[in-house]
Amino acid sequence: MIILGIDPGLRTTGFGLIEKHGNKLRYIASGTIKTVSEGELPGRLKIILNGIAEIVRTYQPDCAAVEKVFVNVNPQSTLLLGQARGAAITALVGADLSVAEYTALQVKQAVTGHGKAAKEQVQDMVARLLVLPGLPGTDAADALGVAICHANSIDALALIGALAPSLSGLRMKRGRLV
Amino acid sequence: MIILGIDPGLRTTGFGLIEKHGNKLRYIASGTIKTVSEGELPGRLKIILNGIAEIVRTYQPDCAAVEKVFVNVNPQSTLLLGQARGAAITALVGADLSVAEYTALQVKQAVTGHGKAAKEQVQDMVARLLVLPGLPGTDAADALGVAICHANSIDALALIGALAPSLSGLRMKRGRLV
Repeated sequence: MIILGIDPGLRTTGFGLIEKHGNKLRYIASGTIKTVSEGELPGRLKIILNGIAEIVRTYQPDCAAVEKVFVNVNPQSTLLLGQARGAAITALVGADLSVAEYTALQVKQAVTGHGKAAKEQVQDMVARLLVLPGLPGTDAADALGVAICHANSIDALALIGALAPSLSGLRMKRGRLV
Repeated sequence: MIILGIDPGLRTTGFGLIEKHGNKLRYIASGTIKTVSEGELPGRLKIILNGIAEIVRTYQPDCAAVEKVFVNVNPQSTLLLGQARGAAITALVGADLSVAEYTALQVKQAVTGHGKAAKEQVQDMVARLLVLPGLPGTDAADALGVAICHANSIDALALIGALAPSLSGLRMKRGRLV
């Protein structure tokens, strides 16, 4: 299963592709889609749309995951970021991909084990988990992190699905199943 | 020339199509694309994408115009609205349409003659300008208003283009060209 992770932004949208074989993860590709701030908004969103469409054509991912974005202190920035994120998700659903969403906290938790990790820790752990020869850029690392987070979630969801029939006779006692 | 106007929103996206023949405007169609608030964001953006794609297929507009949205007092609402607007613009540029943007103030000015008109005045003037048998809904009226605003701007831009070569010898005197 090939997972496409996206870290959306109007100026820089990070993307990262990984392959999941059982509980093994393999790096495929990563990078950024960039737009210049002098351009008109529709043209910039078209660059994001075309960039994602090309990535999907090239790597044929099976599903996608997108980082949830922060509400910025500057409302105008929030609006711009929202529009970029809307364009990215629209490009993905337009390519018939299912799109999962994860907060930055969930991504950091999945990649580093704690939700308050610094950017550098995310880069470092992404490089270790995917056995990269060097550190990915921050936007690409975040996108790869979203893909890793989704790979883990798929396992967790599958496990819950598999256990569900046998859970009916169990009770909780001091926070454990007995 | 057929112009598609869009008033974007996550819950309700208004659309309106008009035909411009010289300085005459003719109503073609209008309505809304609705998404339910219980749905996941990617699914809701897909409904907006598919809705706009279907409108473009059906009516084959030559260009599009989208209302610029307000920054809401609630940052989370601003983010959601931004994402919906991003989806709408992405659907339009994905259909190879040029997309112009106008503020609500510009739209009200174009339709009613003053920028502080109430919703009802916009509905009323849109109905009069397009000789509609009844009042359009507010979202459809806003979308038709954006289309009318763009029709007027095209004329103004063409006029400036046509006059530009002969403007070089003119001077301004008390706010008039002499």
